[in-house]
Amino acid sequence: MPDPLRHHGDLEARGGLLDFAVNVYDGPRPAWLDLALHASLDDAARYPSATEAERAVAARHGRDPAEALATAGAAEAFSLVARLRPWRRPAVVHPQFTEPHAALRQAGHVVTELVLAEPFRLDPAVVPDDADLVMIGNPTNPTGVLHPRTTIRELLREDRLVVVDEAFMDAVPGEPETLAGERLPGLLVIRSLTKHWGIPGVRAGYVVAEPDVVRDLRDGQVPWSVSSAAAAAMVACSTAEALTEAERRALEIDAWRRDLEESLSTMGVRHVPSRASFVLAEVGAGGHAALRDAGIAVRRADTFPGLGPAWVRIAVRPPARSRSLLDALSALRSDALG
Amino acid sequence: MPDPLRHHGDLEARGGLLDFAVNVYDGPRPAWLDLALHASLDDAARYPSATEAERAVAARHGRDPAEALATAGAAEAFSLVARLRPWRRPAVVHPQFTEPHAALRQAGHVVTELVLAEPFRLDPAVVPDDADLVMIGNPTNPTGVLHPRTTIRELLREDRLVVVDEAFMDAVPGEPETLAGERLPGLLVIRSLTKHWGIPGVRAGYVVAEPDVVRDLRDGQVPWSVSSAAAAAMVACSTAEALTEAERRALEIDAWRRDLEESLSTMGVRHVPSRASFVLAEVGAGGHAALRDAGIAVRRADTFPGLGPAWVRIAVRPPARSRSLLDALSALRSDALG
Repeated sequence: MPDPLRHHGDLEARGGLLDFAVNVYDGPRPAWLDLALHASLDDAARYPSATEAERAVAARHGRDPAEALATAGAAEAFSLVARLRPWRRPAVVHPQFTEPHAALRQAGHVVTELVLAEPFRLDPAVVPDDADLVMIGNPTNPTGVLHPRTTIRELLREDRLVVVDEAFMDAVPGEPETLAGERLPGLLVIRSLTKHWGIPGVRAGYVVAEPDVVRDLRDGQVPWSVSSAAAAAMVACSTAEALTEAERRALEIDAWRRDLEESLSTMGVRHVPSRASFVLAEVGAGGHAALRDAGIAVRRADTFPGLGPAWVRIAVRPPARSRSLLDALSALRSDALG
Repeated sequence: MPDPLRHHGDLEARGGLLDFAVNVYDGPRPAWLDLALHASLDDAARYPSATEAERAVAARHGRDPAEALATAGAAEAFSLVARLRPWRRPAVVHPQFTEPHAALRQAGHVVTELVLAEPFRLDPAVVPDDADLVMIGNPTNPTGVLHPRTTIRELLREDRLVVVDEAFMDAVPGEPETLAGERLPGLLVIRSLTKHWGIPGVRAGYVVAEPDVVRDLRDGQVPWSVSSAAAAAMVACSTAEALTEAERRALEIDAWRRDLEESLSTMGVRHVPSRASFVLAEVGAGGHAALRDAGIAVRRADTFPGLGPAWVRIAVRPPARSRSLLDALSALRSDALG
């Protein structure tokens, strides 16, 4: 594996395996979103503009348009944050999605790894006082832990930017811990349309932050980096109809996940209680490979700082589809015991 | 105007004016491209991969896949080049498209401006010996000058990267001066699908260069920056059918441009002989504003280093559509004379 920090679930799901590696919502695209995406191609004969998209996502979180920046997925946002300032001591709370760390390293920074121990809950004391950038995921990929926003708020201080990656927040019913609506100095929230709306190929995400931070991020952006389709998706996914469907999906994912966690518990597979669309489970050191042999792709977790080879991340799917994974896991455990 | 280097034709074409500002091919999208773009949205539920796209564009220029990097338009390529190395003396040959210059400045570089005088033909002697990066457009936007590739080759030397922006090369029948197929140390060619295929909203471009340069550029790229639609467009526009249509369009543009240049000459409007899909014309200091008043958007040219307020860039359109522009220009000249 060339670079563990740049290893992602999409690489694991190749080769005809049953995909429990990619955390994208397992259901059809809403008709209104499909329509908006196809319609955007008629518009693609003009240079793209993100103005309307930024107005829409800002309004969705009760923010001003000047507080929103549309990006080509959360990945572009990480890169813009990494290149925003000559960070003295950028810190990343691990285990979490590795792209923020990789983007910082790519921009030439030395990253302070703050590794949480099981049960992976945020302890503000782990963050050194002189960290001028702190990046954290909420809910956290791959642990599924949802940090209380009051705890994240404790990280805020003068001369520090706290970046919360909320790429999976829309999978949490009611989004009780989102900080996207809070206008706080030094707080920056990254959101993504990728997972909940199942459109990783479109590259749609955004940042909400204070206007001066948004302006500085925009200054670092490649012109027209947000395509017509991505801009159209942001508008379409911010309507009242979209928010209703978002909540319906969140409740559905929540039910699917409870079902999966219950089955894992019944089988005696240890896992971290999750609030997201995936579950971090301990299947033993050979478990990942054995599942692949059985035709099942789960996401290896040993590429996440702080996690060993015993852990894998399982995407939440409709219970009927999870059956094959649970059967394979069950066979694995019988083999191990037998 | 906030930043002259970041001023582009798309800003001028707003507000219901007749658009002679944006240099995008003025004709319908080919059915096969439209089909490929729409089909790519079905694929957008997966993370995008540019592998097939890179294979296709490499083959189109007789290069190895390792010599091609797909990018989110030429704009991403400029940004990647700007951040590729700690350039000691990056130089940009002006007047030309300002994004290469802006991208260098954005990356923190001080840019040496090499300003060609009329008739804007490349003289290798203008490039200082210690320039370790030279960026040039061919054919050049906004002058329409097509530099001989032999002259550009003269710029090559050890410890220098010569970057040729060929975003408009597909508008030149037969592409006699393209360097995209030449495997030369220190040469990098940027191409774009934006203009010739009329898809600025899709963000599709690519780089061809030596494998080690491509690898280093890739290392600086935001993950998944090329969307499913952009990757699909690159595949679709590299087929034999596409290349035939590309040449047909180039011949058509060539004929339209000759017609426009003839009309301008007949009217006594001085212009630079062009080989591209636009013509740089001298309409006098108030010409740009007067044309806007007449409902016609042409691209102001005073934001290009080396050009004054008397120049405008006119996009080549079918002769019937150019009529209104020529009429407005004619009225302007009568006013000036009368």
